[in-house]
Amino acid sequence: MGKNKQLRLGASIHGVGSSHTAWRHPDIPADASVNLSFYTRQAQKAEEGKFDFVFIADGLYINDKSIPHFLNRFEPITILSALSSVTSHIGVVGTLSTSYSEPFTVARQFASLDHISKGRAGWNVVTTPLEGTALNYGGRSHPSHSERYQIAEEYLEVVKGLWDSWEDDAFIRDKESGTFFNPLKLHRFDHEGSYFSVQGPLNIARSSQGQPVIFQAGSSDSGRNLAAKTADAVFTGPDSLEEAKQFYNDVKQRAAAYGRSPDEILILPGIGPIVGSTEEEAELKYREIAELVTPEKALQYLGRYFEHHDFSQYPLDEPFPELGDFGSNSFRSTTDRIKQRAKEDNLTLRQVALQEATPRTAFIGTPAKVADLVQQWFEEEAADGFIIGSSVPGGLDDFVEQVLPILRDRGLFRTDYEEDTLRGNLGIPIPVNRYAKQKDTAING
Amino acid sequence: MGKNKQLRLGASIHGVGSSHTAWRHPDIPADASVNLSFYTRQAQKAEEGKFDFVFIADGLYINDKSIPHFLNRFEPITILSALSSVTSHIGVVGTLSTSYSEPFTVARQFASLDHISKGRAGWNVVTTPLEGTALNYGGRSHPSHSERYQIAEEYLEVVKGLWDSWEDDAFIRDKESGTFFNPLKLHRFDHEGSYFSVQGPLNIARSSQGQPVIFQAGSSDSGRNLAAKTADAVFTGPDSLEEAKQFYNDVKQRAAAYGRSPDEILILPGIGPIVGSTEEEAELKYREIAELVTPEKALQYLGRYFEHHDFSQYPLDEPFPELGDFGSNSFRSTTDRIKQRAKEDNLTLRQVALQEATPRTAFIGTPAKVADLVQQWFEEEAADGFIIGSSVPGGLDDFVEQVLPILRDRGLFRTDYEEDTLRGNLGIPIPVNRYAKQKDTAING
Repeated sequence: MGKNKQLRLGASIHGVGSSHTAWRHPDIPADASVNLSFYTRQAQKAEEGKFDFVFIADGLYINDKSIPHFLNRFEPITILSALSSVTSHIGVVGTLSTSYSEPFTVARQFASLDHISKGRAGWNVVTTPLEGTALNYGGRSHPSHSERYQIAEEYLEVVKGLWDSWEDDAFIRDKESGTFFNPLKLHRFDHEGSYFSVQGPLNIARSSQGQPVIFQAGSSDSGRNLAAKTADAVFTGPDSLEEAKQFYNDVKQRAAAYGRSPDEILILPGIGPIVGSTEEEAELKYREIAELVTPEKALQYLGRYFEHHDFSQYPLDEPFPELGDFGSNSFRSTTDRIKQRAKEDNLTLRQVALQEATPRTAFIGTPAKVADLVQQWFEEEAADGFIIGSSVPGGLDDFVEQVLPILRDRGLFRTDYEEDTLRGNLGIPIPVNRYAKQKDTAING
Repeated sequence: MGKNKQLRLGASIHGVGSSHTAWRHPDIPADASVNLSFYTRQAQKAEEGKFDFVFIADGLYINDKSIPHFLNRFEPITILSALSSVTSHIGVVGTLSTSYSEPFTVARQFASLDHISKGRAGWNVVTTPLEGTALNYGGRSHPSHSERYQIAEEYLEVVKGLWDSWEDDAFIRDKESGTFFNPLKLHRFDHEGSYFSVQGPLNIARSSQGQPVIFQAGSSDSGRNLAAKTADAVFTGPDSLEEAKQFYNDVKQRAAAYGRSPDEILILPGIGPIVGSTEEEAELKYREIAELVTPEKALQYLGRYFEHHDFSQYPLDEPFPELGDFGSNSFRSTTDRIKQRAKEDNLTLRQVALQEATPRTAFIGTPAKVADLVQQWFEEEAADGFIIGSSVPGGLDDFVEQVLPILRDRGLFRTDYEEDTLRGNLGIPIPVNRYAKQKDTAING
């Protein structure tokens, strides 16, 4: 690892952060998830901090048990497009599901966002864990976990193919001769696969970064393989430094096995740092948030990972119930983790529920302590950077104002953007258009 | 008609306007269709003119014969979201097809745009004429004209139902008690129809205008019925004042037959005014654009309406060929009009092709003459307003700077926005949430 290697940072800015009841905190706008000023302010703060990107998560199914800030929130494509107009350098990255959409439309919307933002778009490819989603999309049954990943792989193949429809020098636009484009540089994709049949070409060209950046967040075996094969960056939610290192090493090895350079895929754990001028102040900030959740609400939110299972039927202070295979077709890696930890640590249902409702981050303490942890994870190859969520009110501001200056002093993070595009700032290559590449090979070979 | 009735105006700002070869004009940016500054400038100019809305058209299929500015252009949802950030009062209206999308996604994206723009969103509901589109969406066959309208009708039912998922006072957000919303004011839609099965609820609430404004543009019999039943405004492209009056009267009557007030549906012909300080200057502007198209290109573009039929096989200077039913499943009303006019006026293929490539607008001349025509169409009930396209470079600027002041002097158009929302400015009612309405009825009845 050279001393010039830099941290990559994203800011997760959807709604009020990862805590289900944070909206009750006096310093948080209760309508944050549909508050444009809140989003704009967060995005501009992240850009002031020279973050690589802002990130908007998503979901396609709610019911009356859902987490409050999921009930009523902006849709990613629209809010990212709007934020691209009020920022100039930060990447705009959002979640969109390959299980409930059409590749032609999604390829277009991200390509268009990529143009509008002048090369700053990124797509977090998800397969949609929530089974109920099928009820909002034609009532067909939710595909199995492994099938969702097969669909996603083919879907990405199609989208990336469509994105290359126009070679970079296809548009001539010669007013004198009336030649608008060179038809030899326009390509249909003519895809006929197991799940999709898409002719193309796409009606939009590539942006200055070639193609939007591909993010992924799956941590199951199929999820890791898809990421290793196709993603530019991977979000992960490890419980410990050890787990993070294992994940990091595992995905980089899988990428190498697919013939990719491990440097071409960035591993970005999600963390919600809590910064205080003293350890005690930081702890107090955590407790203020944690105490806003009631055990009843905590059970309800826990149920969401288990196909909206009703946990109120079990005694609160006895060991976490035996659930068998339950929940394996939804948030599989989350439910596995919850079950495993409950067993290992002999946790009661109450303990599991409260812990899941307000996970206690390891990244808590003084600015120097948080900076130390960030540096340690980075240097010990547990992370190429992080995606920062706001666990507490002002969490992003604290990180930008108090932690980033320390990381800059240590030479770990930029003082200004190096490039205009998201790929440029993340230090990942612009993919050469596949058709131009074919010709180069033909000429050189 | 009261003297206070006001014109409604939209500006069609996608790309370089309706002429296929306008990009060759020295004063037009040849990359206009993907030029963010061009779009921003057009939208801000229209807002300076106090237009009701900007409009972005769309299409989902191209091939190497397509009109240049369709080959590479912004996708409507993304560009409208971006433009909403750089404008404050003007409506943001775009085309999206009901034949190739999912109602849950489309309901969400327009609802989200409606929130982001603070109640300024509008959706132009189209059924997609181009058959080739099916090749980009699963290769299934393009539904027939009448089936597309059946799909659209059910689709709109679903979308409007999803938009009402949350009653306007559903969100309580009481920090003290932890009550985020009132579950009695959250509604599933539970739709099971011929084409769609959608449970809901939608994960976004209504905006300050209740629901996005519904536009439509179909002029066939099924198109008129759908508009009369479900639309707030209708775009139309009449050839003459007489035709416009007939259309106006016909759609208003159909609306009344569906039990609606004729005032609740606005008829907006599309015009591309060409303004000059003298008649001659205006004519010269038209000729400069018309002369940019070659007969070969004109034939090619004509073919687009007829399923990409190859018109180069016919002699240019003989009567327009007999085509039978050809083209009836695509742009039916356009092809009918072309065939009919060719017959009536004994036109050659060359004449038809050049006329279609650069239609000569009736709204051409001095500012006073164009204002007179606008006033005449408005007062003779041919139009409730217009959607203004740029036929020539600076067409929108000329209209805003030279024609609008005259219309204002005559008391026909606003000097400033009356309201913050698109519905408010268009003078059409905010739809009462269907569930709140049910209760009112229950209480009052």
